[in-house]
Amino acid sequence: MRKKNGLMVGIDLGGTSMTAVALNGRGRILASRKRSTCPDLGPEGVTRRIAATVRKLLNDLGTKSKRVQGVGIGAPGTVDPEKGVVLYAPNLSWQDHPLAKMLGRLLSLPVTLDNDVNGGAVGEHALGSGKGANNLVAIFVGTGIGGGVILNNRLYHGSYGGAGEVGHIKILADGPLCGCGRKGCAEGLASRTAMERDMRQAVDSGRASRVPNIMARMGRERMTSRVIQEALREGDPLMREILQRAQHCLGLLVASLVNLLDPDCVVIGGGIADRLKDEFLEPIRATATRHILRAPHLEPVRIVPSRLGDHAGSVGAAVIAWNRLAGINPTES
Amino acid sequence: MRKKNGLMVGIDLGGTSMTAVALNGRGRILASRKRSTCPDLGPEGVTRRIAATVRKLLNDLGTKSKRVQGVGIGAPGTVDPEKGVVLYAPNLSWQDHPLAKMLGRLLSLPVTLDNDVNGGAVGEHALGSGKGANNLVAIFVGTGIGGGVILNNRLYHGSYGGAGEVGHIKILADGPLCGCGRKGCAEGLASRTAMERDMRQAVDSGRASRVPNIMARMGRERMTSRVIQEALREGDPLMREILQRAQHCLGLLVASLVNLLDPDCVVIGGGIADRLKDEFLEPIRATATRHILRAPHLEPVRIVPSRLGDHAGSVGAAVIAWNRLAGINPTES
Repeated sequence: MRKKNGLMVGIDLGGTSMTAVALNGRGRILASRKRSTCPDLGPEGVTRRIAATVRKLLNDLGTKSKRVQGVGIGAPGTVDPEKGVVLYAPNLSWQDHPLAKMLGRLLSLPVTLDNDVNGGAVGEHALGSGKGANNLVAIFVGTGIGGGVILNNRLYHGSYGGAGEVGHIKILADGPLCGCGRKGCAEGLASRTAMERDMRQAVDSGRASRVPNIMARMGRERMTSRVIQEALREGDPLMREILQRAQHCLGLLVASLVNLLDPDCVVIGGGIADRLKDEFLEPIRATATRHILRAPHLEPVRIVPSRLGDHAGSVGAAVIAWNRLAGINPTES
Repeated sequence: MRKKNGLMVGIDLGGTSMTAVALNGRGRILASRKRSTCPDLGPEGVTRRIAATVRKLLNDLGTKSKRVQGVGIGAPGTVDPEKGVVLYAPNLSWQDHPLAKMLGRLLSLPVTLDNDVNGGAVGEHALGSGKGANNLVAIFVGTGIGGGVILNNRLYHGSYGGAGEVGHIKILADGPLCGCGRKGCAEGLASRTAMERDMRQAVDSGRASRVPNIMARMGRERMTSRVIQEALREGDPLMREILQRAQHCLGLLVASLVNLLDPDCVVIGGGIADRLKDEFLEPIRATATRHILRAPHLEPVRIVPSRLGDHAGSVGAAVIAWNRLAGINPTES
């Protein structure tokens, strides 16, 4: 059971970096650590690196570290939450890695595993902008597009643990190639990677943009959220055009999700949403609203920005671990 | 509670016709009736017509009619299952009609209301080809495209009763106009209405097809499933091409649903699926399989044809009524 005074560690494991937080029983973050993942270390090396990060976090907590009851971790890929095994994580080149067991042994703490974006959805639902929603869909836009689905106040995993792949809902039949190798996915149209591809193609074909200069000036190899923000600030028309196209596609994605699942809340997060805030969200909301099918007197769905930002995944991983310690079915949030 | 020997009446109310069945406790249909809806009679006139149809069905049952415990009805539109009110049924031009109460008074039987395609999904899940699935999506292709979602063995209604609108998931951003007045919906690309529109446009622009002749010969004003079947039988290339395009879009729709909800079963029904059987289903399955994101060792989802055909909706309405009489939450199946 959740001890009144207890703390929980939550970890969001990404392909490039990991974030760890220590959360108290009222959902406050008492300490946090961020560190690169170094996937080249392989599954066991990365697991040891996670353990080291948690130890640093415990150190930051000082005497409070004794109150830590367990660890929740979200991994980027398909997981078996009951067995604590990462089944398949293409970003890390992992297959069938017993992460929870190994990390638990290294830390002598109970470890709960789920998917990283599922964690993000749970975080926003429990402690972020989705608070109070019964049914919620979270969409995180970054190098890819991930998401999570909360139904009847519980995280929904699907029949084989694969639910929530909002980035691979088709938006444009036979459209541009997605990172998954298929055509027409939302991720291939509206992720930061897709926008960067569109920018490169346009610039290569001779269109003018300040983006290459901004990237050089900032010393960035990729079109990061900060680059996008700066290009918009400088009034770059091509950047605006590419962003608008992505926002239109995201609006159609939101409408599709609402027409299927009729949630009371859609949360939109990820680096670009966190940085651009309403400038990112408002056009998505406008397109979605036009395409949502609604009987005349039904409540409108809330379409809101993430509130936990970078911490949604780690906070959510801790919440999942807490619910699990409290005896709630491990395949639910 | 469900009496061992009891019967339940299920009604599928459509914009053009209504189907009523009497179902026994083992899911067998003991009698059925089909009759035109005559929406011009208005909500009260149609309700009296439904009551008359049920009385005929009870008459067909003879002495067994005493075993009827109640009536379940599925209406085409948004409903409030708890209050038994049809909130909005554009096909019938109804708004806020207290169907369950009025029909219950006319028949002196308890009446349970839900949406018609929700009924179809429940029917296929309880007694059709979706038997045994935990999570199921049903797609019915006809003049429109409707559907229903069963999650954790329960019908999922969403936050405001609007869930399951699979026909208004976007498949082709800014694509052809849908009946809902918006662009790019699955229904505007792959319903029978969409195929008929594509056929008319192609023929008007001078392309050859046997379809106009077949329609004239059969005395049909619309390109019905039978017309489509006959055109395929006669080897009409344009018909085949239009059907293939619709099947491709339906395959993308199925893939989107599976990527989001990870169900163990997808049921495809409706007049055209019932008539063409595997000729309709196989290409949908092939496209879907190519576009489904799956970790390498996960089970493949079952994509199967409806088994109850024309009776899915009425059987499902009876099952919903039975579950409700048995004390299961009325907003669940």
